[in-house]
Amino acid sequence: MIQTPYLLFLGDAPDALAAKVAQGIKDWRPEFAIGQLRMENCKADMGLTDMTLVEAKAAGAKTLVIGVANRGGVISPAWKKILIAALEEGFDLASGLHNLLRDEDDLVAVAKACGRELHDVRVPSVEYPIATGVKRTGKRCLAVGTDCSVGKMYTALAMDASMRERGLKSTFRATGQTGILITGNGVPLDAVVADFMAGAVEYISPDNDADHWDLIEGQGSLFHVSYSGVTMALVHGGQPDALILCHEPTREHMRGLPGYSLPSLQALRDTALPLARVANPACVVVGISVNTQHLSEAEALTYLASVEAEMGLPAVDPFRQGAGRLVDALVKLDETVSA
Amino acid sequence: MIQTPYLLFLGDAPDALAAKVAQGIKDWRPEFAIGQLRMENCKADMGLTDMTLVEAKAAGAKTLVIGVANRGGVISPAWKKILIAALEEGFDLASGLHNLLRDEDDLVAVAKACGRELHDVRVPSVEYPIATGVKRTGKRCLAVGTDCSVGKMYTALAMDASMRERGLKSTFRATGQTGILITGNGVPLDAVVADFMAGAVEYISPDNDADHWDLIEGQGSLFHVSYSGVTMALVHGGQPDALILCHEPTREHMRGLPGYSLPSLQALRDTALPLARVANPACVVVGISVNTQHLSEAEALTYLASVEAEMGLPAVDPFRQGAGRLVDALVKLDETVSA
Repeated sequence: MIQTPYLLFLGDAPDALAAKVAQGIKDWRPEFAIGQLRMENCKADMGLTDMTLVEAKAAGAKTLVIGVANRGGVISPAWKKILIAALEEGFDLASGLHNLLRDEDDLVAVAKACGRELHDVRVPSVEYPIATGVKRTGKRCLAVGTDCSVGKMYTALAMDASMRERGLKSTFRATGQTGILITGNGVPLDAVVADFMAGAVEYISPDNDADHWDLIEGQGSLFHVSYSGVTMALVHGGQPDALILCHEPTREHMRGLPGYSLPSLQALRDTALPLARVANPACVVVGISVNTQHLSEAEALTYLASVEAEMGLPAVDPFRQGAGRLVDALVKLDETVSA
Repeated sequence: MIQTPYLLFLGDAPDALAAKVAQGIKDWRPEFAIGQLRMENCKADMGLTDMTLVEAKAAGAKTLVIGVANRGGVISPAWKKILIAALEEGFDLASGLHNLLRDEDDLVAVAKACGRELHDVRVPSVEYPIATGVKRTGKRCLAVGTDCSVGKMYTALAMDASMRERGLKSTFRATGQTGILITGNGVPLDAVVADFMAGAVEYISPDNDADHWDLIEGQGSLFHVSYSGVTMALVHGGQPDALILCHEPTREHMRGLPGYSLPSLQALRDTALPLARVANPACVVVGISVNTQHLSEAEALTYLASVEAEMGLPAVDPFRQGAGRLVDALVKLDETVSA
């Protein structure tokens, strides 16, 4: 569990895209983002108050989150100076970088001397159990994709935000680095040892109120041969009551796999649903989330309408339209089950 | 890679079942089993020559394999004395125990002093890559089960043995501790980090001759919610050309999962085959392997005949009948593809 609120470290980001972790926190948990810390040549800007470490500490920030990718696979001396100063100032550090903070001897020494924590969110911090398959109370929704990186995290976060706005009980359950940094906890599922993957998913979505929904962040795709095992563990460990199908319609092949074409939404439905019903016979597909960033507004609306007609399910781009109709589908499901 | 041949350490096995790893080596790689080393109160016997360390060394043994389960989760002082003597005598040690040899300071120190290796086959020894999905040359057969522990390893080993007898090119590819100890190499797939599972399977079944078959050891089940992710990685990383369906007909629920019933063989076929075809569109189901140990001979034959009629595929118990008909199915597949 990472202590909030955060000071977002944007470093020497060469462009806005490099700071996408910070952007995610700013977008989805603005209440966690007290300010930003930028180096002189930083080209990213979250529109937050620029703060020194001392100012941020005074404002209540607990953790300096590295919200930017590093260059060249090293933590530079310039970064190091700031990270050490932050520890000395009383901040914990949190990072999703490939280079682990815990592998930097100076950071470890200073953190120990100052009694601060180093959070490397790429590394599991819990000894997860083996999944039991025992039915849990509360409801769960899982986003599954035709491919990796089609908007599963965005969809779950947008649904969670919409549910909170309506006063419904929901929790986004992070299963990847960015999601963990955004919310302060979760499991880096791709880094968990195989035997414990499904158990880790059970662990992060425990028993809950009967009217509470976990929005579980999806990973990979059942059709992506590199990562399908991780997806499978989510489908079984998550015991979803509801699936959202996620798709990016302009992609020419599976991400990183030339020669592998994307499945249709029908194929995704027909593959994912029977597998999900092994763990939860009541599971249904409730909606479709399409990432239309590479389509014009007109093209997007036409495409969404055609998908909606073909699949007989609400189809939205939550970035353009919000996730309200997907949440409607969950609410309707609740009503159907109760009726 | 564990150096062969082996001296099999049976320790103080309380019964034959405790020595099932040694039994597997004796059954499937008798040429690796030069002799056995038994303590005074040992109740297991592989029918091999009892040898001292010195005798086994003189006979050419390279590795002392712990072929027996330990009791109480500790490596006892009595065992330790023998293991240390073996290192001093010039043996490597190989173990599939939960307690790792490398966690025993005295073994580590003596191994280092003597220049010997400690092989803990539960721990991956390779940094596996992420799977690429690139089509590999050669053929691959994967056993998939309705449940865990239904005879997938036995089936693959029996098919491999039958193929070798016929002079066909085949290799058993171990994916679990016992299989690794039997053959001297492989991947402990359940201990691999999630992102690298499918890559590990690709790694152990690389490009090969066009007429060579890898018999890949299956793990878990697509229907076992605790381990299905591991199975999924085998189905995609293995790129199987042929699937064998494995089943145990008397089981009342999924292993370790009360309340979860076993799928039918039809359901297994209809789930596994489309998933396998994502990685290898040519994949087909060629046969069925049934573990009939809890049936009488008559019951077994009746059951196998009914499965064969229902599924339209050869159905055998390789323990009772050998795996010849399953190998026939692979050969027939080769002929069909070539024709």
